[in-house]
Amino acid sequence: MSLLESTIARIREPDAGAIAEAAARQDRLTKPQGSLGELEALSIKIAGIVGSGRPRLGPGAVFVMAGDHGVCAEGVSAYPAEVTLEMARNIARGGAGINALARKAGARVVVADVGMACDLPPAPGIYIKKVRRGAANIARGPAMSRDEARRSVEAGIEVFEAELAREAFAIAATGDMGIGNTTPSTAIASVYTGRAPRELAGRGTGVDDAGLERKIRAIELALAANRPDPEDALGVLAAVGGLEIGGIAGLILAAAARRVPILVDGFISGAGALVAQGLCPLAARYMIAAHVSGDSGHRFMLEALGLKPLLSLGMRLGEGTGAALAMTLCDAACRALDEMATFEEAGVSGKEEA
Amino acid sequence: MSLLESTIARIREPDAGAIAEAAARQDRLTKPQGSLGELEALSIKIAGIVGSGRPRLGPGAVFVMAGDHGVCAEGVSAYPAEVTLEMARNIARGGAGINALARKAGARVVVADVGMACDLPPAPGIYIKKVRRGAANIARGPAMSRDEARRSVEAGIEVFEAELAREAFAIAATGDMGIGNTTPSTAIASVYTGRAPRELAGRGTGVDDAGLERKIRAIELALAANRPDPEDALGVLAAVGGLEIGGIAGLILAAAARRVPILVDGFISGAGALVAQGLCPLAARYMIAAHVSGDSGHRFMLEALGLKPLLSLGMRLGEGTGAALAMTLCDAACRALDEMATFEEAGVSGKEEA
Repeated sequence: MSLLESTIARIREPDAGAIAEAAARQDRLTKPQGSLGELEALSIKIAGIVGSGRPRLGPGAVFVMAGDHGVCAEGVSAYPAEVTLEMARNIARGGAGINALARKAGARVVVADVGMACDLPPAPGIYIKKVRRGAANIARGPAMSRDEARRSVEAGIEVFEAELAREAFAIAATGDMGIGNTTPSTAIASVYTGRAPRELAGRGTGVDDAGLERKIRAIELALAANRPDPEDALGVLAAVGGLEIGGIAGLILAAAARRVPILVDGFISGAGALVAQGLCPLAARYMIAAHVSGDSGHRFMLEALGLKPLLSLGMRLGEGTGAALAMTLCDAACRALDEMATFEEAGVSGKEEA
Repeated sequence: MSLLESTIARIREPDAGAIAEAAARQDRLTKPQGSLGELEALSIKIAGIVGSGRPRLGPGAVFVMAGDHGVCAEGVSAYPAEVTLEMARNIARGGAGINALARKAGARVVVADVGMACDLPPAPGIYIKKVRRGAANIARGPAMSRDEARRSVEAGIEVFEAELAREAFAIAATGDMGIGNTTPSTAIASVYTGRAPRELAGRGTGVDDAGLERKIRAIELALAANRPDPEDALGVLAAVGGLEIGGIAGLILAAAARRVPILVDGFISGAGALVAQGLCPLAARYMIAAHVSGDSGHRFMLEALGLKPLLSLGMRLGEGTGAALAMTLCDAACRALDEMATFEEAGVSGKEEA
């Protein structure tokens, strides 16, 4: 069995006993039932994922998967392609948005080169898992071979496993870095939502009207040239995906196999999540949607994943920034479940019966 | 000059220079402009409040103002009135929702009795500022005298000032505890939004249909009996308010006078914020709306305050729980502004000009 198959084989249903225990405890805590809103459902979901009726989360890890995109040649991005390398270096040095937000969340940041065109200098916290130097131009043909698609997913699994072995973490978050990567992500969204590229495509890092038209055209060309089949997730990834998107799918599968809650960031992570769900529908039970991105189309991805986002702050930076912000909410939800007194413990009168 | 008047006299416009400086820095940080969404506006607002173009927040303080309500006699709440005391004790002991969420936010919790019917045993972190033993039944007459209304607001100012003198904090949050207090809060919302009680009233801690009808009827009676004038905020508070609601208004005025950002929690805090805005319109510039509550009507309060909420998680617990959760977002927003590298510092290429 390949690493991908053996990982998928380890993914089970969340723990129904822990879910029931957490739900029962929520109803005995000193508050009107349901008054903590989404935090209650979140704590119960995490209980099921980790298999404890009263889960406590330890430190987190944010995984930023990096890759480049030949489709940049179509003029789909507002930034030059070298920014992938420059920003990966900025993240490795601690100067990017994800670093500030991860520090706040008490999480470390790991960068993995799954398919960058250039090379990062080796440094702590950087994994080199380069499957190929950038995805090919999807407007003209497949992004990569089927074997490369599989290896990009396995790269994500390997990075997750290696980092977990190096130092434990209790919650993970997906992130991305790759100039041009909203274009393949939109193509993947189109495959899984059945919606037209024009309905899903946003301005990414901020293309102008002409750039947006070029982007939509490139996605239309990519879908026409490659005819991806939604029933074949690895085929979709190979046809119109990206290497960091495969890496994100791998992270999610590894997290599900290890019963670690995984916060799915925004638009690009959403594409990785759709691939992960395509490979293993159960994986969605382990995903927590951090936020709904300012990128148009992301909400349709979340619908296709059956996930409700925790935050809606118009963020569209990627890198895992929305996921890092939402990590605090996950911890807060578990703390409320664990630390609050019950009516009985606190000697507080219950609801009056009518 | 009274404490209320002198406090209001100290409230100035936020610092325009700091706002401009923060906004300019946001645009030089290594991210597409605007891609941190609401976090950018939040950091810029905090810059103006504290008067620094690169603000850093230290520890926070959550103020839970407690009071009782004679209108409970009308059968408006699902819980018996003694729960105010029981829950205030639970908060003082650290067992309530606000304690778990404040601990997560690195904030301390302060409880103030502004108008509880019973007495809390003295303990650290508890302020006794009892103006009277519970508000009167607003369905039958005014909640309190005009002098008591003023003293309840001044109690909030005094608690804020005393706690700040005891140990510094960089950000504050409002919270409430008072069985029955969504009823006066809805009445205040009706005065300031011009909407009918039926449109604004929710189930609070969870009344059934008959309880909701009793609640709406009580609010209608309160407005008819007391005829509050929106131009006279102290009069509104005296007519249909509550002592902890006055205390919350006082906290907000004190925070604005001290240039401390203040997170406004949910429905009851929103009523206090409306009173504070009525007393001093500039005060709204210092408020940060933590969340939109699951209580119907809260969004209309936020509209009247001109505030956009950070979170929307269907929470309706009060105590300051939404505010404590949002405190982390405020700190994260400031950290991103302060800690991220600029394009120049990081050697990252900027946007390509068309």
